[in-house]
Amino acid sequence: MPTHLSIAVDLDYGVPEPADILLQIEAAATPEQRLDEQELLIWSDDPIATIAGEEGIGQRCWLRATNRIQAAYRAKVTIDRPAAALASLAATPVRGLPGTLVAYLLPSRYCPADRFEGFVRQKFGGLSGGAMASALAEWVHEHMTYRAGTSDSATTALHSFASRMGVCRDYAHLLVALARAAEIPARCVAAYAPGVDPPDFHAVAELWLEGRWHLVDATGMARADELAIVAVGRDATDIAFMTIFGTATLIGQTVAVQRTTPAERG
Amino acid sequence: MPTHLSIAVDLDYGVPEPADILLQIEAAATPEQRLDEQELLIWSDDPIATIAGEEGIGQRCWLRATNRIQAAYRAKVTIDRPAAALASLAATPVRGLPGTLVAYLLPSRYCPADRFEGFVRQKFGGLSGGAMASALAEWVHEHMTYRAGTSDSATTALHSFASRMGVCRDYAHLLVALARAAEIPARCVAAYAPGVDPPDFHAVAELWLEGRWHLVDATGMARADELAIVAVGRDATDIAFMTIFGTATLIGQTVAVQRTTPAERG
Amino acid sequence: MPTHLSIAVDLDYGVPEPADILLQIEAAATPEQRLDEQELLIWSDDPIATIAGEEGIGQRCWLRATNRIQAAYRAKVTIDRPAAALASLAATPVRGLPGTLVAYLLPSRYCPADRFEGFVRQKFGGLSGGAMASALAEWVHEHMTYRAGTSDSATTALHSFASRMGVCRDYAHLLVALARAAEIPARCVAAYAPGVDPPDFHAVAELWLEGRWHLVDATGMARADELAIVAVGRDATDIAFMTIFGTATLIGQTVAVQRTTPAERG
Amino acid sequence: MPTHLSIAVDLDYGVPEPADILLQIEAAATPEQRLDEQELLIWSDDPIATIAGEEGIGQRCWLRATNRIQAAYRAKVTIDRPAAALASLAATPVRGLPGTLVAYLLPSRYCPADRFEGFVRQKFGGLSGGAMASALAEWVHEHMTYRAGTSDSATTALHSFASRMGVCRDYAHLLVALARAAEIPARCVAAYAPGVDPPDFHAVAELWLEGRWHLVDATGMARADELAIVAVGRDATDIAFMTIFGTATLIGQTVAVQRTTPAERG
Repeated sequence: MPTHLSIAVDLDYGVPEPADILLQIEAAATPEQRLDEQELLIWSDDPIATIAGEEGIGQRCWLRATNRIQAAYRAKVTIDRPAAALASLAATPVRGLPGTLVAYLLPSRYCPADRFEGFVRQKFGGLSGGAMASALAEWVHEHMTYRAGTSDSATTALHSFASRMGVCRDYAHLLVALARAAEIPARCVAAYAPGVDPPDFHAVAELWLEGRWHLVDATGMARADELAIVAVGRDATDIAFMTIFGTATLIGQTVAVQRTTPAERG
Repeated sequence: MPTHLSIAVDLDYGVPEPADILLQIEAAATPEQRLDEQELLIWSDDPIATIAGEEGIGQRCWLRATNRIQAAYRAKVTIDRPAAALASLAATPVRGLPGTLVAYLLPSRYCPADRFEGFVRQKFGGLSGGAMASALAEWVHEHMTYRAGTSDSATTALHSFASRMGVCRDYAHLLVALARAAEIPARCVAAYAPGVDPPDFHAVAELWLEGRWHLVDATGMARADELAIVAVGRDATDIAFMTIFGTATLIGQTVAVQRTTPAERG
Repeated sequence: MPTHLSIAVDLDYGVPEPADILLQIEAAATPEQRLDEQELLIWSDDPIATIAGEEGIGQRCWLRATNRIQAAYRAKVTIDRPAAALASLAATPVRGLPGTLVAYLLPSRYCPADRFEGFVRQKFGGLSGGAMASALAEWVHEHMTYRAGTSDSATTALHSFASRMGVCRDYAHLLVALARAAEIPARCVAAYAPGVDPPDFHAVAELWLEGRWHLVDATGMARADELAIVAVGRDATDIAFMTIFGTATLIGQTVAVQRTTPAERG
Repeated sequence: MPTHLSIAVDLDYGVPEPADILLQIEAAATPEQRLDEQELLIWSDDPIATIAGEEGIGQRCWLRATNRIQAAYRAKVTIDRPAAALASLAATPVRGLPGTLVAYLLPSRYCPADRFEGFVRQKFGGLSGGAMASALAEWVHEHMTYRAGTSDSATTALHSFASRMGVCRDYAHLLVALARAAEIPARCVAAYAPGVDPPDFHAVAELWLEGRWHLVDATGMARADELAIVAVGRDATDIAFMTIFGTATLIGQTVAVQRTTPAERG
């Protein structure tokens, strides 16, 4: 049974000096999620260029902000994504993986997977495939405490592994780092989900098993079949909702995601 | 006038525990470099899988090593790459860049470009495009001292920026980080070049200007028209000649690259 | 001519879970600064223990906070510190330094001095002693831009060296790291000063030359003869005004420092 | 019953450019360890200055090396140190600790204790004092694997916590970081011990409980009563056997420590 989401995002940032900004907040159109309605308004005197997202998933736009950037996004999305039983999926030896997945096995800025090989071998040595993936996801879920304000844009999976605290992005980074250390391709996904509390942009992990990607939210806030994907990438670097080549200061920001019934969508 | 290179690589590593290994040492076939002869021998009991390199450039192979890995690579390559006058190339506003280049504007593990925005603005504030690119390359060349043993696999561009020392990989990381901070797409390139001293795998930067990539070797060891590209990527993570999912110890390794004349190639 | 300062600090923090807190906000009594009046009020149900500061300079106190910590500090301080002409001071070879100063030559968490040896040698190679110290201080002053919000508690001198931005603490860290790399003992000092804008706790560097410590404020906000020292140490770790073994959230905080005339002090 | 150790160290390093060197390899004379014989020979044309170690424990010397440094150290030490039953020691609230111990509760370069508060609370939440200390030591012993070559001078306790591998210094750093996160003062100690395999300089942790320091070797190689202390400090920064203000390359180095009987000492 499909999930229907209504999404409303409002952004307002001050930009002290003219700066290029990459905005990435639109739900992606994919075989498993349909954009029933979508509108992105950006107040800007300069032209806006829309480009494809990483891996060709979703889209993002380049803005030139002179002293302020304001954007409003409204969308209705229908998600029809089968939720696989992660634990029962088979392992794929790395030799069987296509070249395009190699990047998702390697360390990245926030997911220094090479550092975690020892822990993964020690703690989960006998596992592989879906059994490994679900054990890692469960471990992150049970050992992390969700707490805002305990992490920032410099926090890597190494920090979260020791602090045992963080927000969705930190859960995703840690799970991605552990999965890569277990030789399971893993990437980070920006998404909208109805149960995120407090409401905000959400980030989850995506693991490659049995020939396709599987969304895994280690915070437990969202199921795979209720996530509206915005962007994918190696880690938060690629999937940030806003990347500023300069500095910006928050004036206001709200993200509202609600589950609707088809009738309400009229 | 094309450059002809003869390349010979021999690798020998001990692998204490069975490990998956990604080997990336073959010169790529591209419009600007032709593989006249090529042979890669790998001593292994397990099957070897060949996959595409990042961005579809070059190829790499997956090995399973049980206690030792030995490989021999021999190739003859003809390079016919026009060397552009970097400084005269025009700037492309980021809004005009295709989505596939965005990753090369963002920070990565070894190239934390966001940290360098202040320095680039302070030192090279008025420049853009090719003038910026060549000023950055020259700055790196003049302020870095090539010295083996002063850096390792944990060394980032931040470290090299302070230590002012390193090897080719550190030069490439620093130039790439600075270029991205200047909003010029930049990536790292693994290559073979005849003048590398001591002979070894080489790494250089590649900057995007006027609609194409331009090779830049900040060490000054190689010109763009005598580099045989092996792989490209965000930084050393992607272009390593060998990535081991486990541990390996060096037994022996030689890299020999010589300029030849066509007659010698028979 | 002595400087007279009037200092008023009010702190108010929420402490979600009971936590031990180390508070270090009292001006130190030293031969060069006299405490004419001083009062520290702390609202706490638990006993407070007062202990000596690092190097026996100043004092700090241990608190146990159960859900909130409030403190008010009022002091009048007379500073009579001769300001040396830094540039003319002679160099002391490290062999002539007492053992207690060695720690101030070594790298510390925020001042990874070993990383900066290359830069210091390259840029200031021929200098030593006071000429080196003043050249380093001037370099930091000219190349850093004071900007709040550009750094945080994870920012090291390596980051500031690349970003060229920060607050007083970042200026101090960078100067200390550079001085140590030049084999000049250097430490960080927490202080009160009248010209700090916006008013806040202040941090400066202290360099050892000709047998004594010399205060140097690379931000240029305060002269050595108008700084009321609170604490000294290897870096911000040691001189923080508040160290929480747990978490705390800011409710309110004001720091006011004014130059007074002796008459006003009655 | 006292332990008698015979220690022999030979160092030989090349120094490409003249550099100041701090050498710290002599066993300390303390109430619990007596230097029966001791000789340190250093081949150097420049005068050597001997200074006190950190906390006044042991001594170190400043050398000026022009192109090579060679040193030979021979000593016979009698250790008479009671080994306390760590687990039974009582907790001291931080408020009861003298000011001189505060530094050993704070984060340092290799022991970022603040990062570990979450883990320590989660895993060892109900414990304190000696029960906490011995639980932490046991945890490190059981979860770390001793393996040379898996760490280097940039490896912090965060890295070891994830890699679960390292050498004595990494064990010490991790235990010290965890103990500080548990509000137990902890420092690093350089020492000689007979059972270190392969023979080398050794590093252990020292925890403060019931009013005194207790040596704890998380590697399990040495007991408290057979360690000859050389130096103490916040982490490896302070206790390094050799600190070079410049660069040096290893030519040869041997460390031999043997348990002797008093008769043999003649």
